[in-house]
Amino acid sequence: MSCIFCQIISGEAKGTILYRDDLVTAFRDIHPIAATHILIVPNKHIESVNSIEPEDAPLLGHLFLVAKELAAREGVSEKGYRLMMNTGRDGGQTVLHLHLHLIAGKLARFHLG
Amino acid sequence: MSCIFCQIISGEAKGTILYRDDLVTAFRDIHPIAATHILIVPNKHIESVNSIEPEDAPLLGHLFLVAKELAAREGVSEKGYRLMMNTGRDGGQTVLHLHLHLIAGKLARFHLG
Repeated sequence: MSCIFCQIISGEAKGTILYRDDLVTAFRDIHPIAATHILIVPNKHIESVNSIEPEDAPLLGHLFLVAKELAAREGVSEKGYRLMMNTGRDGGQTVLHLHLHLIAGKLARFHLG
Repeated sequence: MSCIFCQIISGEAKGTILYRDDLVTAFRDIHPIAATHILIVPNKHIESVNSIEPEDAPLLGHLFLVAKELAAREGVSEKGYRLMMNTGRDGGQTVLHLHLHLIAGKLARFHLG
């Protein structure tokens, strides 16, 4: 199990866990680009959007419900936030375990790959 | 029905429709920020991520399955692409009908709001 996100989900590696249920785990990005920068990750290892299947639709949708909840907890629901999922090298994907970025507040930096 | 995306979905307003099924419609952004810039939109009017409900999870996941298919058609699956959903003013949401941006290829510009 060499995937760092699988290790964080299992507790083998450290992470600032903000949310966890049977389907997804959310933790703070260790290299935040904004005041709020959270990663929402399926517990199941899916490499990228290129490898999703129709049966993953409810799981993918659930990432957004968790994002809505975490945006509320972070106090950014009304001001606004961005949700982003990067795929592939030119898309800026750095960990090959699908993840949804929740980004809000003052931007520290922004890499476009 | 004053929502421009509802009008494009219904055919009342023009759009370069790339994909359509019972749940979602996809069309090119009229102000593209990159070589590929497609909007994938639920046919049902949902204002933003702040207004999604648990029963919307399969629909939201379906947006990603359509994004995967359109990335393949655009020939960007392997190089990579970004999927982004903006919420609220500071999040850069400009049309109050939830939509997923598919962005790939050479960037023309990038607004962070």
